[in-house]
Amino acid sequence: MSELTDSVAATMREFEKLPGIGKKSAERIVYHLLHVSREEATSLADAIRTMKENVRYCKRCYNLAENDLCEVCQDPQRDQSLLCVVEQPRDLIALEKTGRYRGLYHVLLGRVSPLDGVSSDQLTIDALTKRVKSGNFKEIIMATNPTVEGDGTALTIMSRLDGIPVKITRLARGITTGSALEFANNEMLSDAISCRQEFDVLEN
Amino acid sequence: MSELTDSVAATMREFEKLPGIGKKSAERIVYHLLHVSREEATSLADAIRTMKENVRYCKRCYNLAENDLCEVCQDPQRDQSLLCVVEQPRDLIALEKTGRYRGLYHVLLGRVSPLDGVSSDQLTIDALTKRVKSGNFKEIIMATNPTVEGDGTALTIMSRLDGIPVKITRLARGITTGSALEFANNEMLSDAISCRQEFDVLEN
Repeated sequence: MSELTDSVAATMREFEKLPGIGKKSAERIVYHLLHVSREEATSLADAIRTMKENVRYCKRCYNLAENDLCEVCQDPQRDQSLLCVVEQPRDLIALEKTGRYRGLYHVLLGRVSPLDGVSSDQLTIDALTKRVKSGNFKEIIMATNPTVEGDGTALTIMSRLDGIPVKITRLARGITTGSALEFANNEMLSDAISCRQEFDVLEN
Repeated sequence: MSELTDSVAATMREFEKLPGIGKKSAERIVYHLLHVSREEATSLADAIRTMKENVRYCKRCYNLAENDLCEVCQDPQRDQSLLCVVEQPRDLIALEKTGRYRGLYHVLLGRVSPLDGVSSDQLTIDALTKRVKSGNFKEIIMATNPTVEGDGTALTIMSRLDGIPVKITRLARGITTGSALEFANNEMLSDAISCRQEFDVLEN
């Protein structure tokens, strides 16, 4: 687009690389940035740069961290006998928001997905196996996504942990809380029937 | 969100300030930036910073420019007798993309909008009046948006230019090219009838 100045066109191209941002959204964002004060625009640029410089993966659990260990691993109050295995840092954040889990985490940084060329050795499964072997965990909670790939990843991990004396559980699945039975699909309903829970579990 | 590291949360907040970017989109973008190489993420930050440092308004027409004058004003090939008045640089870009206009522009940097507290003296109308008075323009084309505010802005400008011997035209409006008559609204159809064009104008 020769109609745009070079640096405007360059910035639009950079925004278009982001997920969910098309040509029109990139244009709209760039015009907004041209309109706001220099401080406001550069504070976005600085935030990106600072984040990329400071954020790394926790050396123990592969959560996002700004030090060697993430906030969860640094917290002595967390239950050291519980380990929850998730695919991505964003899953950990979703679970933390509930405030119902006080154990530790292990982030796989992906899921086994042959179609996308992701095999189990590209994940942090080796580190997880070592942690479980050397740790004093009572229970490992599989919290991979309730999808074919998430379930497959959980199965891969369970076969790796085979022989280690530890209880392995997974997140309860079934009908969506707050939804209506008539809209639940077959898979959801069969899970809900076969994993039916004792009534007093709801009191917890 | 204490679950996020400080710099991740800060970057999400910055992205949420952008138009069309909500909480979920900001999260998605930030996770993407955490995932890509440092070079890729900082090239976005650098593009924003460079753009904000280099881009200014053209001293003559208020288009976006990286020098004192924008590319259009610098181009000696442009017809110096035609002046097209637009609201924003993005309108200029839209017109340039058609390749059908070879004159100069004047960017108002907004439109008169009492409801938003934008009065005519916040626009570049004074500069426009001076240009028209001192220039040798044969025709001024009003290309403000076909809205109440755009039309109001055009009327304000026309009253300011009153007495200057120059032809003032506006963009043709009527039924949308490529659309169907049955879906056109009343306003569109009345414009189309009252501004009906001689058939050979289409040959141009």
